Amino acid sequence: MDMYDAMSTLRAVRRIKSDPIDPAVINRILLAATWAPTGGNMQPWRIVAVEDPKIKTELQHLYKPLWDAYTVGYRRKMEAMPADEKASSAGALDAGDYLANNLGSVPLIAVFCFNPSIMAITDKDQPRASVVGGGSVYPAVQNLLLAARNEGLGCVLTTLLCMEEPRVRELLQLPDDWYTAAHVPVGHSVGGGHGPIRRKPVNVMVSQDTWDKAWPTV
Amino acid sequence: MDMYDAMSTLRAVRRIKSDPIDPAVINRILLAATWAPTGGNMQPWRIVAVEDPKIKTELQHLYKPLWDAYTVGYRRKMEAMPADEKASSAGALDAGDYLANNLGSVPLIAVFCFNPSIMAITDKDQPRASVVGGGSVYPAVQNLLLAARNEGLGCVLTTLLCMEEPRVRELLQLPDDWYTAAHVPVGHSVGGGHGPIRRKPVNVMVSQDTWDKAWPTV
Repeated sequence: MDMYDAMSTLRAVRRIKSDPIDPAVINRILLAATWAPTGGNMQPWRIVAVEDPKIKTELQHLYKPLWDAYTVGYRRKMEAMPADEKASSAGALDAGDYLANNLGSVPLIAVFCFNPSIMAITDKDQPRASVVGGGSVYPAVQNLLLAARNEGLGCVLTTLLCMEEPRVRELLQLPDDWYTAAHVPVGHSVGGGHGPIRRKPVNVMVSQDTWDKAWPTV
Repeated sequence: MDMYDAMSTLRAVRRIKSDPIDPAVINRILLAATWAPTGGNMQPWRIVAVEDPKIKTELQHLYKPLWDAYTVGYRRKMEAMPADEKASSAGALDAGDYLANNLGSVPLIAVFCFNPSIMAITDKDQPRASVVGGGSVYPAVQNLLLAARNEGLGCVLTTLLCMEEPRVRELLQLPDDWYTAAHVPVGHSVGGGHGPIRRKPVNVMVSQDTWDKAWPTV
Protein backbone atom coordinates (compact mmCIF):
# COMPACT_ATOMS: atom_id res chain seq x y z
CA MET A 1 0.00 0.00 0.00
CA ASP A 2 0.96 3.66 -0.29
CA MET A 3 3.41 4.55 2.46
CA TYR A 4 1.57 7.63 3.68
CA ASP A 5 -1.71 5.71 3.79
CA ALA A 6 0.00 3.02 5.89
CA MET A 7 1.63 5.50 8.28
CA SER A 8 -1.50 7.60 8.76
CA THR A 9 -3.69 4.57 9.60
CA LEU A 10 -1.22 2.67 11.82
CA ARG A 11 -3.30 2.37 14.97
CA ALA A 12 -2.40 0.48 18.12
CA VAL A 13 -4.38 -2.74 17.48
CA ARG A 14 -4.83 -4.62 20.75
CA ARG A 15 -7.65 -7.02 19.79
CA ILE A 16 -5.89 -9.77 17.87
CA LYS A 17 -7.28 -13.18 16.82
CA SER A 18 -5.53 -16.45 17.47
CA ASP A 19 -5.70 -17.37 13.74
CA PRO A 20 -2.28 -18.25 12.35
CA ILE A 21 -0.37 -15.87 10.06
CA ASP A 22 0.89 -17.06 6.66
CA PRO A 23 4.61 -17.87 7.25
CA ALA A 24 5.61 -15.99 4.08
CA VAL A 25 3.92 -12.89 5.49
CA ILE A 26 5.76 -13.26 8.80
CA ASN A 27 9.02 -13.49 6.89
CA ARG A 28 8.29 -10.30 4.99
CA ILE A 29 7.60 -8.28 8.14
CA LEU A 30 10.73 -9.65 9.82
CA LEU A 31 12.76 -8.79 6.72
CA ALA A 32 11.34 -5.25 6.77
CA ALA A 33 12.62 -4.87 10.33
CA THR A 34 16.16 -5.84 9.28
CA TRP A 35 16.25 -2.98 6.74
CA ALA A 36 16.16 -0.30 9.44
CA PRO A 37 19.15 1.99 9.97
CA THR A 38 21.31 1.60 13.10
CA GLY A 39 24.28 3.57 14.46
CA GLY A 40 27.42 2.58 12.53
CA ASN A 41 25.27 -0.12 10.82
CA MET A 42 25.97 -2.30 13.87
CA GLN A 43 22.42 -3.71 13.96
CA PRO A 44 22.68 -4.15 17.75
CA TRP A 45 19.15 -5.58 18.00
CA ARG A 46 17.54 -8.99 17.49
CA ILE A 47 13.99 -10.30 17.48
CA VAL A 48 12.93 -13.37 19.39
CA ALA A 49 9.77 -14.30 17.46
CA VAL A 50 7.65 -16.15 19.99
CA GLU A 51 5.07 -18.59 18.59
CA ASP A 52 5.28 -21.33 21.25
CA PRO A 53 1.97 -21.26 23.20
CA LYS A 54 3.72 -22.14 26.47
CA ILE A 55 6.09 -19.18 26.24
CA LYS A 56 3.33 -16.82 25.08
CA THR A 57 1.21 -17.86 28.06
CA GLU A 58 4.12 -17.18 30.42
CA LEU A 59 4.48 -13.73 28.85
CA GLN A 60 0.77 -13.13 29.40
CA HIS A 61 1.13 -14.10 33.07
CA LEU A 62 3.90 -11.53 33.42
CA TYR A 63 2.08 -8.88 31.40
CA LYS A 64 -1.38 -8.99 32.96
CA PRO A 65 -0.47 -7.70 36.47
CA LEU A 66 1.71 -4.96 34.93
CA TRP A 67 -1.19 -3.85 32.73
CA ASP A 68 -3.64 -3.93 35.64
CA ALA A 69 -1.27 -1.81 37.75
CA TYR A 70 -0.69 0.63 34.87
CA THR A 71 -4.40 1.19 34.29
CA VAL A 72 -4.97 2.32 37.89
CA GLY A 73 -3.03 5.53 37.23
CA TYR A 74 -4.40 5.80 33.70
CA ARG A 75 -8.03 5.65 34.88
CA ARG A 76 -7.22 8.39 37.38
CA LYS A 77 -5.71 10.55 34.60
CA MET A 78 -8.81 9.98 32.46
CA GLU A 79 -10.98 11.80 34.99
CA ALA A 80 -9.36 15.09 33.96
CA MET A 81 -9.75 14.51 30.21
CA PRO A 82 -12.26 16.30 27.93
CA ALA A 83 -15.23 14.06 26.98
CA ASP A 84 -14.08 12.99 23.51
CA GLU A 85 -10.56 12.17 24.68
CA LYS A 86 -12.01 10.29 27.65
CA ALA A 87 -14.22 8.16 25.40
CA SER A 88 -11.29 7.34 23.13
CA SER A 89 -9.10 6.50 26.15
CA ALA A 90 -11.85 4.26 27.59
CA GLY A 91 -11.91 2.40 24.27
CA ALA A 92 -8.14 2.00 24.36
CA LEU A 93 -8.37 0.68 27.94
CA ASP A 94 -10.97 -1.94 26.94
CA ALA A 95 -8.78 -3.02 24.05
CA GLY A 96 -5.79 -3.14 26.40
CA ASP A 97 -7.75 -5.34 28.82
CA TYR A 98 -8.52 -7.63 25.88
CA LEU A 99 -4.83 -7.87 25.01
CA ALA A 100 -3.85 -8.52 28.63
CA ASN A 101 -6.36 -11.39 28.73
CA ASN A 102 -5.43 -12.84 25.34
CA LEU A 103 -1.71 -12.23 24.85
CA GLY A 104 -1.04 -15.95 25.11
CA SER A 105 -3.20 -16.76 22.10
CA VAL A 106 -1.89 -14.07 19.73
CA PRO A 107 -0.08 -15.97 16.93
CA LEU A 108 3.20 -14.04 17.17
CA ILE A 109 4.93 -11.88 19.78
CA ALA A 110 8.03 -10.19 18.35
CA VAL A 111 10.31 -9.46 21.30
CA PHE A 112 12.91 -6.87 20.29
CA CYS A 113 16.22 -7.34 22.13
CA PHE A 114 19.30 -5.12 22.13
CA ASN A 115 22.91 -5.16 23.23
CA PRO A 116 24.08 -1.85 24.75
CA SER A 117 27.73 -2.97 24.75
CA ILE A 118 27.85 -2.66 20.94
CA MET A 119 26.05 0.70 20.83
CA ALA A 120 27.55 4.18 20.80
CA ILE A 121 25.19 5.79 23.32
CA THR A 122 26.06 9.44 22.75
CA ASP A 123 23.74 10.75 25.47
CA LYS A 124 24.97 8.41 28.22
CA ASP A 125 26.67 11.25 30.13
CA GLN A 126 23.75 13.67 29.94
CA PRO A 127 22.00 14.36 33.26
CA ARG A 128 18.62 12.99 32.09
CA ALA A 129 17.09 9.70 30.90
CA SER A 130 19.12 8.22 28.05
CA VAL A 131 17.27 7.46 24.81
CA VAL A 132 19.94 7.22 22.09
CA GLY A 133 20.35 3.45 22.41
CA GLY A 134 16.74 3.29 21.28
CA GLY A 135 17.80 5.02 18.06
CA SER A 136 19.28 1.69 16.93
CA VAL A 137 16.22 -0.38 17.90
CA TYR A 138 12.92 1.47 17.45
CA PRO A 139 13.40 2.32 13.75
CA ALA A 140 13.38 -1.48 13.25
CA VAL A 141 10.27 -1.76 15.44
CA GLN A 142 8.56 0.92 13.37
CA ASN A 143 9.50 -0.87 10.14
CA LEU A 144 7.93 -4.05 11.51
CA LEU A 145 4.73 -2.21 12.55
CA LEU A 146 4.44 -0.52 9.15
CA ALA A 147 5.10 -3.82 7.37
CA ALA A 148 2.40 -5.54 9.45
CA ARG A 149 0.02 -2.69 8.56
CA ASN A 150 1.02 -3.15 4.92
CA GLU A 151 0.15 -6.85 5.15
CA GLY A 152 -3.22 -6.16 6.78
CA LEU A 153 -2.15 -7.43 10.21
CA GLY A 154 -2.90 -5.82 13.54
CA CYS A 155 -0.03 -5.00 15.92
CA VAL A 156 0.94 -2.72 18.80
CA LEU A 157 4.22 -1.51 20.31
CA THR A 158 4.32 -2.42 24.02
CA THR A 159 7.08 -1.90 26.56
CA LEU A 160 5.45 -2.80 29.90
CA LEU A 161 7.18 -6.19 30.00
CA CYS A 162 10.52 -4.38 30.39
CA MET A 163 9.49 -4.04 34.05
CA GLU A 164 9.78 -7.84 34.31
CA GLU A 165 12.89 -8.05 32.15
CA PRO A 166 14.88 -10.51 34.30
CA ARG A 167 12.07 -13.07 34.02
CA VAL A 168 11.55 -12.42 30.29
CA ARG A 169 15.29 -12.83 29.68
CA GLU A 170 15.24 -16.16 31.49
CA LEU A 171 12.15 -17.30 29.59
CA LEU A 172 13.67 -16.47 26.20
CA GLN A 173 17.13 -17.62 27.33
CA LEU A 174 18.80 -14.35 26.39
CA PRO A 175 22.60 -14.37 26.70
CA ASP A 176 24.62 -11.91 28.78
CA ASP A 177 24.52 -8.33 27.47
CA TRP A 178 21.18 -8.76 25.63
CA TYR A 179 18.10 -6.98 27.01
CA THR A 180 14.54 -6.23 25.89
CA ALA A 181 13.20 -3.05 24.30
CA ALA A 182 9.74 -3.88 22.93
CA HIS A 183 7.19 -6.66 22.70
CA VAL A 184 4.99 -6.51 19.63
CA PRO A 185 1.99 -8.84 19.37
CA VAL A 186 1.04 -9.40 15.72
CA GLY A 187 -1.95 -11.10 14.10
CA HIS A 188 -5.28 -10.65 12.37
CA SER A 189 -7.50 -8.02 13.99
CA VAL A 190 -10.69 -8.98 15.80
CA GLY A 191 -12.48 -5.81 14.68
CA GLY A 192 -11.72 -3.18 12.07
CA GLY A 193 -8.06 -3.12 13.03
CA HIS A 194 -6.06 -0.19 11.74
CA GLY A 195 -7.78 3.06 10.78
CA PRO A 196 -7.93 6.77 11.63
CA ILE A 197 -5.51 8.06 14.27
CA ARG A 198 -5.62 11.07 16.57
CA ARG A 199 -2.45 13.19 16.51
CA LYS A 200 -1.47 16.80 17.22
CA PRO A 201 -1.10 18.99 14.10
CA VAL A 202 2.27 19.80 12.50
CA ASN A 203 2.30 23.38 13.77
CA VAL A 204 2.10 22.07 17.35
CA MET A 205 4.71 19.32 16.87
CA VAL A 206 7.21 21.38 14.86
CA SER A 207 9.02 24.66 15.50
CA GLN A 208 11.01 26.68 13.01
CA ASP A 209 14.66 27.42 13.87
CA THR A 210 14.03 27.91 17.58
CA TRP A 211 11.56 26.44 20.07
CA ASP A 212 9.14 29.37 20.33
CA LYS A 213 8.58 29.91 16.62
CA ALA A 214 5.72 27.71 15.35
CA TRP A 215 6.14 26.02 12.01
CA PRO A 216 4.26 27.95 9.26
CA THR A 217 2.21 25.07 7.82
CA VAL A 218 1.53 25.85 4.14
CA MET B 1 6.64 4.56 -3.77
CA ASP B 2 6.10 0.98 -2.54
CA MET B 3 6.83 0.78 1.17
CA TYR B 4 9.18 -2.17 0.95
CA ASP B 5 11.12 -0.54 -1.89
CA ALA B 6 11.50 2.58 0.24
CA MET B 7 12.60 0.69 3.37
CA SER B 8 15.06 -1.54 1.54
CA THR B 9 16.80 1.38 -0.19
CA LEU B 10 16.88 3.81 2.74
CA ARG B 11 20.61 4.48 2.94
CA ALA B 12 22.39 6.92 5.19
CA VAL B 13 22.82 9.82 2.72
CA ARG B 14 25.51 12.19 4.00
CA ARG B 15 26.28 14.15 0.82
CA ILE B 16 23.47 16.67 0.59
CA LYS B 17 23.23 19.73 -1.70
CA SER B 18 22.39 23.21 -0.47
CA ASP B 19 19.48 23.46 -2.98
CA PRO B 20 16.21 24.38 -1.26
CA ILE B 21 13.45 21.83 -0.73
CA ASP B 22 9.90 22.52 -1.93
CA PRO B 23 8.03 23.74 1.19
CA ALA B 24 5.07 21.43 0.42
CA VAL B 25 7.47 18.47 0.45
CA ILE B 26 8.93 19.55 3.80
CA ASN B 27 5.39 19.73 5.19
CA ARG B 28 4.63 16.20 4.01
CA ILE B 29 7.69 14.69 5.69
CA LEU B 30 6.99 16.59 8.93
CA LEU B 31 3.38 15.39 8.83
CA ALA B 32 4.57 11.81 8.33
CA ALA B 33 6.64 12.13 11.51
CA THR B 34 3.57 13.19 13.51
CA TRP B 35 1.75 9.96 12.56
CA ALA B 36 4.17 7.78 14.53
CA PRO B 37 2.93 5.85 17.58
CA THR B 38 4.05 6.94 21.07
CA GLY B 39 3.49 5.49 24.53
CA GLY B 40 -0.03 6.38 25.70
CA ASN B 41 -0.30 8.59 22.56
CA MET B 42 1.50 11.28 24.56
CA GLN B 43 3.62 12.37 21.56
CA PRO B 44 6.40 13.46 23.95
CA TRP B 45 8.64 14.64 21.09
CA ARG B 46 8.93 17.76 18.96
CA ILE B 47 10.98 18.77 15.93
CA VAL B 48 12.89 22.01 15.72
CA ALA B 49 13.21 22.34 11.94
CA VAL B 50 16.34 24.40 11.46
CA GLU B 51 16.64 26.35 8.20
CA ASP B 52 18.36 29.52 9.49
CA PRO B 53 21.92 29.50 8.05
CA LYS B 54 23.36 31.04 11.22
CA ILE B 55 21.98 28.28 13.44
CA LYS B 56 22.94 25.54 10.98
CA THR B 57 26.49 26.89 10.89
CA GLU B 58 26.63 26.87 14.69
CA LEU B 59 25.45 23.24 14.62
CA GLN B 60 28.21 22.44 12.14
CA HIS B 61 30.80 24.02 14.43
CA LEU B 62 29.59 21.79 17.26
CA TYR B 63 29.31 18.69 15.06
CA LYS B 64 32.67 18.78 13.25
CA PRO B 65 34.98 18.17 16.25
CA LEU B 66 32.66 15.40 17.50
CA TRP B 67 32.78 13.71 14.11
CA ASP B 68 36.57 14.07 13.89
CA ALA B 69 36.97 12.54 17.36
CA TYR B 70 34.53 9.71 16.51
CA THR B 71 36.39 8.74 13.34
CA VAL B 72 39.66 8.19 15.21
CA GLY B 73 38.22 5.09 16.87
CA TYR B 74 36.29 4.13 13.76
CA ARG B 75 39.40 4.16 11.58
CA ARG B 76 41.11 1.93 14.14
CA LYS B 77 38.19 -0.52 14.04
CA MET B 78 38.33 -0.55 10.25
CA GLU B 79 41.80 -2.11 10.35
CA ALA B 80 40.24 -5.37 11.56
CA MET B 81 37.50 -5.46 8.92
CA PRO B 82 37.41 -7.79 5.89
CA ALA B 83 38.30 -6.03 2.62
CA ASP B 84 34.77 -5.43 1.28
CA GLU B 85 33.48 -4.14 4.61
CA LYS B 86 36.55 -1.92 4.93
CA ALA B 87 35.95 -0.38 1.50
CA SER B 88 32.32 0.28 2.32
CA SER B 89 33.29 1.79 5.68
CA ALA B 90 35.91 4.01 4.02
CA GLY B 91 33.18 5.28 1.69
CA ALA B 92 30.92 6.00 4.64
CA LEU B 93 33.76 7.88 6.36
CA ASP B 94 34.36 10.05 3.29
CA ALA B 95 30.65 10.83 3.13
CA GLY B 96 30.68 11.58 6.85
CA ASP B 97 33.59 13.98 6.38
CA TYR B 98 31.56 15.67 3.64
CA LEU B 99 28.60 16.08 6.00
CA ALA B 100 30.80 17.40 8.80
CA ASN B 101 32.19 20.03 6.42
CA ASN B 102 28.84 20.97 4.88
CA LEU B 103 26.21 20.59 7.61
CA GLY B 104 25.73 24.36 7.69
CA SER B 105 24.59 24.46 4.05
CA VAL B 106 22.13 21.54 4.13
CA PRO B 107 18.66 23.09 3.58
CA LEU B 108 17.02 21.50 6.63
CA ILE B 109 18.20 19.96 9.89
CA ALA B 110 15.32 18.30 11.77
CA VAL B 111 16.31 18.27 15.45
CA PHE B 112 14.13 15.78 17.33
CA CYS B 113 13.53 16.81 20.94
CA PHE B 114 11.83 14.87 23.73
CA ASN B 115 10.48 15.39 27.23
CA PRO B 116 11.25 12.48 29.60
CA SER B 117 8.93 13.89 32.29
CA ILE B 118 5.87 12.96 30.18
CA MET B 119 7.18 9.50 29.22
CA ALA B 120 6.50 6.18 30.98
CA ILE B 121 10.07 4.84 30.88
CA THR B 122 9.38 1.22 31.85
CA ASP B 123 13.06 0.19 31.86
CA LYS B 124 14.28 3.05 34.06
CA ASP B 125 14.98 0.72 37.01
CA GLN B 126 16.80 -1.95 35.00
CA PRO B 127 20.56 -2.20 35.70
CA ARG B 128 21.58 -1.34 32.13
CA ALA B 129 21.31 1.57 29.67
CA SER B 130 17.70 2.73 29.32
CA VAL B 131 16.21 2.78 25.82
CA VAL B 132 12.43 2.78 26.27
CA GLY B 133 12.12 6.59 26.16
CA GLY B 134 13.41 6.25 22.61
CA GLY B 135 10.38 4.11 21.82
CA SER B 136 8.31 7.30 21.76
CA VAL B 137 10.76 9.25 19.59
CA TYR B 138 12.58 7.09 17.03
CA PRO B 139 9.44 5.69 15.35
CA ALA B 140 8.74 9.33 14.40
CA VAL B 141 12.35 9.72 13.22
CA GLN B 142 11.98 6.59 11.08
CA ASN B 143 8.72 7.90 9.61
CA LEU B 144 10.50 11.13 8.66
CA LEU B 145 13.42 9.23 7.07
CA LEU B 146 11.06 6.98 5.09
CA ALA B 147 8.99 9.96 3.99
CA ALA B 148 12.14 11.79 2.83
CA ARG B 149 13.11 8.65 0.90
CA ASN B 150 9.60 8.57 -0.56
CA GLU B 151 10.01 12.17 -1.72
CA GLY B 152 13.41 11.49 -3.30
CA LEU B 153 15.35 13.39 -0.62
CA GLY B 154 18.58 12.31 1.05
CA CYS B 155 18.76 12.15 4.84
CA VAL B 156 20.62 10.47 7.70
CA LEU B 157 19.90 9.80 11.37
CA THR B 158 22.68 11.31 13.51
CA THR B 159 23.03 11.43 17.30
CA LEU B 160 26.59 12.75 17.83
CA LEU B 161 25.33 16.24 18.69
CA CYS B 162 23.76 14.79 21.85
CA MET B 163 27.27 14.99 23.27
CA GLU B 164 26.99 18.79 23.02
CA GLU B 165 23.40 18.88 24.15
CA PRO B 166 23.67 21.81 26.58
CA ARG B 167 24.96 24.05 23.79
CA VAL B 168 22.38 22.77 21.27
CA ARG B 169 19.58 23.37 23.80
CA GLU B 170 20.79 26.94 24.26
CA LEU B 171 21.08 27.50 20.51
CA LEU B 172 17.54 26.23 19.83
CA GLN B 173 16.22 27.85 23.04
CA LEU B 174 14.71 24.61 24.33
CA PRO B 175 12.65 24.98 27.51
CA ASP B 176 13.27 23.08 30.75
CA ASP B 177 12.59 19.33 30.47
CA TRP B 178 13.16 19.18 26.70
CA TYR B 179 16.25 17.41 25.38
CA THR B 180 17.61 16.20 22.04
CA ALA B 181 17.43 12.69 20.56
CA ALA B 182 18.40 13.01 16.88
CA HIS B 183 19.55 15.49 14.30
CA VAL B 184 18.48 14.65 10.74
CA PRO B 185 19.92 16.67 7.85
CA VAL B 186 17.59 16.52 4.83
CA GLY B 187 18.01 17.66 1.25
CA HIS B 188 18.69 16.67 -2.32
CA SER B 189 21.55 14.17 -2.68
CA VAL B 190 24.85 15.16 -4.28
CA GLY B 191 25.32 11.70 -5.82
CA GLY B 192 23.00 8.76 -6.35
CA GLY B 193 21.54 9.14 -2.89
CA HIS B 194 19.54 6.21 -1.60
CA GLY B 195 20.10 2.71 -2.98
CA PRO B 196 21.17 -0.81 -1.98
CA ILE B 197 21.87 -1.42 1.71
CA ARG B 198 24.00 -4.02 3.50
CA ARG B 199 22.19 -5.84 6.32
CA LYS B 200 22.44 -9.18 8.10
CA PRO B 201 19.94 -11.84 6.91
CA VAL B 202 16.70 -12.62 8.76
CA ASN B 203 17.97 -15.92 10.14
CA VAL B 204 20.81 -14.04 11.88
CA MET B 205 18.61 -11.22 13.20
CA VAL B 206 15.66 -13.37 14.32
CA SER B 207 15.33 -16.33 16.66
CA GLN B 208 12.31 -18.58 17.07
CA ASP B 209 10.83 -18.86 20.59
CA THR B 210 14.18 -18.78 22.39
CA TRP B 211 17.51 -17.13 21.66
CA ASP B 212 19.43 -20.14 20.40
CA LYS B 213 16.91 -21.35 17.84
CA ALA B 214 17.48 -19.64 14.49
CA TRP B 215 14.44 -18.50 12.55
CA PRO B 216 13.59 -20.97 9.75
CA THR B 217 13.47 -18.56 6.80
CA VAL B 218 11.09 -20.01 4.21
